[in-house]
Amino acid sequence: MPCSISSATICLYDSNRISLAAATDLSFTEDVGRRFASYGWQVLAVADGNDLAELQQAMEAAREERSQPTLIMIKTRIGYGSPNKEGSCEAHGSPLGADEVMLTKEGLGWPPEPAFHIPAEAMEHCRRAVKSGKAAEAAWKALLEKYRLEYPAEAAELDRRISGKLPDGWQKNLPVFPADPKGLATRAASGKVLNNIAPCLTELVGGSADLNPSTLTALAGAGDFQSPRLQPADRQGAVGGPWDYSGRNVHFGVREHAMGAAMNGMAAHGAITPFGATFLVFADYLRPSIRLAALMGLHLVYVFTHDSIAVGEDGPTHQPVEHLAALRAIPGLTVIRPADANETATAWQVALEKRDGPVALILSRQNLPTLDRSILAPADGVQRGAYILAESQGGEPDLILIASGSEVSLALSAREKLHGQGVRARVVSMPSWELFDARPTDYRNLVLPPQVKARLAVEAGSSQGWHRHVGEKGDVIGVDRFGASAPGQAAMEAYGFTSENICTAALALLQKRH
Amino acid sequence: MPCSISSATICLYDSNRISLAAATDLSFTEDVGRRFASYGWQVLAVADGNDLAELQQAMEAAREERSQPTLIMIKTRIGYGSPNKEGSCEAHGSPLGADEVMLTKEGLGWPPEPAFHIPAEAMEHCRRAVKSGKAAEAAWKALLEKYRLEYPAEAAELDRRISGKLPDGWQKNLPVFPADPKGLATRAASGKVLNNIAPCLTELVGGSADLNPSTLTALAGAGDFQSPRLQPADRQGAVGGPWDYSGRNVHFGVREHAMGAAMNGMAAHGAITPFGATFLVFADYLRPSIRLAALMGLHLVYVFTHDSIAVGEDGPTHQPVEHLAALRAIPGLTVIRPADANETATAWQVALEKRDGPVALILSRQNLPTLDRSILAPADGVQRGAYILAESQGGEPDLILIASGSEVSLALSAREKLHGQGVRARVVSMPSWELFDARPTDYRNLVLPPQVKARLAVEAGSSQGWHRHVGEKGDVIGVDRFGASAPGQAAMEAYGFTSENICTAALALLQKRH
Repeated sequence: MPCSISSATICLYDSNRISLAAATDLSFTEDVGRRFASYGWQVLAVADGNDLAELQQAMEAAREERSQPTLIMIKTRIGYGSPNKEGSCEAHGSPLGADEVMLTKEGLGWPPEPAFHIPAEAMEHCRRAVKSGKAAEAAWKALLEKYRLEYPAEAAELDRRISGKLPDGWQKNLPVFPADPKGLATRAASGKVLNNIAPCLTELVGGSADLNPSTLTALAGAGDFQSPRLQPADRQGAVGGPWDYSGRNVHFGVREHAMGAAMNGMAAHGAITPFGATFLVFADYLRPSIRLAALMGLHLVYVFTHDSIAVGEDGPTHQPVEHLAALRAIPGLTVIRPADANETATAWQVALEKRDGPVALILSRQNLPTLDRSILAPADGVQRGAYILAESQGGEPDLILIASGSEVSLALSAREKLHGQGVRARVVSMPSWELFDARPTDYRNLVLPPQVKARLAVEAGSSQGWHRHVGEKGDVIGVDRFGASAPGQAAMEAYGFTSENICTAALALLQKRH
Repeated sequence: MPCSISSATICLYDSNRISLAAATDLSFTEDVGRRFASYGWQVLAVADGNDLAELQQAMEAAREERSQPTLIMIKTRIGYGSPNKEGSCEAHGSPLGADEVMLTKEGLGWPPEPAFHIPAEAMEHCRRAVKSGKAAEAAWKALLEKYRLEYPAEAAELDRRISGKLPDGWQKNLPVFPADPKGLATRAASGKVLNNIAPCLTELVGGSADLNPSTLTALAGAGDFQSPRLQPADRQGAVGGPWDYSGRNVHFGVREHAMGAAMNGMAAHGAITPFGATFLVFADYLRPSIRLAALMGLHLVYVFTHDSIAVGEDGPTHQPVEHLAALRAIPGLTVIRPADANETATAWQVALEKRDGPVALILSRQNLPTLDRSILAPADGVQRGAYILAESQGGEPDLILIASGSEVSLALSAREKLHGQGVRARVVSMPSWELFDARPTDYRNLVLPPQVKARLAVEAGSSQGWHRHVGEKGDVIGVDRFGASAPGQAAMEAYGFTSENICTAALALLQKRH
């Protein structure tokens, strides 16, 4: 059954030709009506925003248009009625002030008292909405009850999604990846996880900013979210399945900012868990929306792939360096950078179970070994933010190697090398600062015992903030400059991300302590 | 003499209906030609990008149009000539591959060898540019010589600006602010500095993203950068002086991203030092441009005002919290947050003398005391990133208070209070991490002696990264959550930014050490 329900979308454009600082003539010459028409909108004009009959007529025309959104351009005068500030940018950002308010009331024939006066007609008009709102609510509830009776399974699913509860046993769909030294990119693991869980988690709706072949975030066969009116001949890139509003794959286009904003709207509506993907370096383009998601405690998932200088040939414009630090600085955002395929599965689990705020998954472009969990700690340690992945061999650790993402397997190799030199090194995988900080002190002290001062953090990103974890006697192998145009592996080696360099830095750290 | 020189601006739009991931039909329904027409562009169309005569004709028509920019929409086929990939998104992001290259050459009637083949006609055509380029260069040089003879003063100024040298003695124009407990906002001090130095530093060109009344970045009387063809009746917000391309005030409008991009273009052109202003919380909107400026080592100045939760009533959406940390994470960007009016003057001096990269000035909305430099260290300490503003009274410090911006005067009050309780506290003003990190170790150890472990950093922003300066035994009074809707002073008090709370935290720190 094609899904093509649509209602009128109406945008009221208050065209008063004034911005905070100036008349819009100083910075704005476009023809707004023609611009929106070029986007495929119906454009209506109201010559005088105080002419209620004209406004009413435009609203009614807009309500009748279901096939395209409507922009109603309404000419108004800012600060209407104020004898000295009407039509002035002074009326934009500052209050009129007591004297000017008095003059305005006088000019409009309003009583000077009370200060906050509501005319009886206005009150009566607004109160009518109580009655009509109650009727609308009752009608909606009756419709929902009817739906519950006719479609009990769909209604139960709707209730589940609105309540934010995940289906019982959904985690059984999370894949378990066998140990594999060649491994796979965490973006690829993420793609498998998504496609395994999507059939059961119908609330998952999302896509990428024109990067599906790279971020691997397409839900195969789950439909393309499109207007069924548009039936283009060329559907290259379509995911397949229904081509209508039931499609769960959103083609955001090269519009990271809009993607972030749309995700917020979907999450605020409820019953949907939106995900949106792009390269980590482009996370900057949606920061304002990420900030709002965190501020509002919205539940949604960002999938940021191509997460370090290991991106390679595209060079420093495409190699994220400061982005991990910049994302971690946002209060309320949980950032998770898994080390292998199984940590990626747990990261998705955390992201979906964490209902009270947004989560950013930071994933590699390049293959990473799938770690052998029969000899290493289980990947569900991700839930605790950081965990002892490999204990020091032969006694208390001389040194702790802390790493995230693609650097974890390097730390494991370094641990082996250090063992050969008689150094007992513990490897801590730390995919998420926020999850670790939320654990009790006892657990944190277990993972990073205060008495072990030799700590080396290894992460292919800005070192900013790592000193809190490694302490004064510790060190960080990070990236505090821009990347370089080179094959990914060569860039990583040149920037010191090799097990040899980790060993050297670790030994220097122990040296310094003696 | 009105300045109205303009040349043709031509944008070639390669319309191949393919994006990285898909046919553009999946995410793009706008009528691009009508959209650009609505912006006031001339729009021309070329039906076949391989029709050189048609292209030539469009280019010539575009060159003749000087009063508006021209968009030439050129229909092309991506991967032209490739039998299996022409018109496909596979030809966008990946190489064709050796086999398909062979098939393409075959189809086009090209020789299979050499692999990188340049047809003789193409070579000859391109090499013609050498000759015409040399002629154009010679003509330009002759024109410049003529200009030098006719306008020696203007030519000398042009040479100075292109070379990036500041005029001798320009610093004399920097205002010195008298000590004043009431003081003024650092944004206000910045406005005075700018207007004092602008007449002498003609390379300063800039403005704000529709926030001149708030960021105080207008250059009074220095003209509005506008097309002289546009002569609007309403010029509210105009700065005054010439209304043409000699205007040094750019009205960027509510377009932070475009402001950042335009600044980069101006700086890359040379002979101009652009500045651009907005609220610190909106710095997120121009991060991609800031990153590129830092990557390219462009010299320009960002003026970010309203720099903390002290912004007040506008609430958490307008109160920056994580932005200082996020900006500091960008390699090559120098961030300076001055503590008072005189530090602001030095910050501008540093920003203008630092030719090898962008500088962000972080300024307060609220008044800050102008510190009494007759009893405190001089404000030129800003050049060193951090300096001892007030030494501990009566011997070696028990404790170091490190603060930036609006929190420095609080730290000074706390120092007095601590003195009353027998605690010797040093106050370090640290307006810039980057400038401090660039100083020799000796200097850094002088300011923050390694043996003084009790260190308290106070900054109304994310604590991320401060642990590197305060060490394991230190502490940070920062803001690791979102702000709140309240008067600025009330918000600051509720978040612990009072001299009393600083004292309490300082005493707790000393307690913990014993």
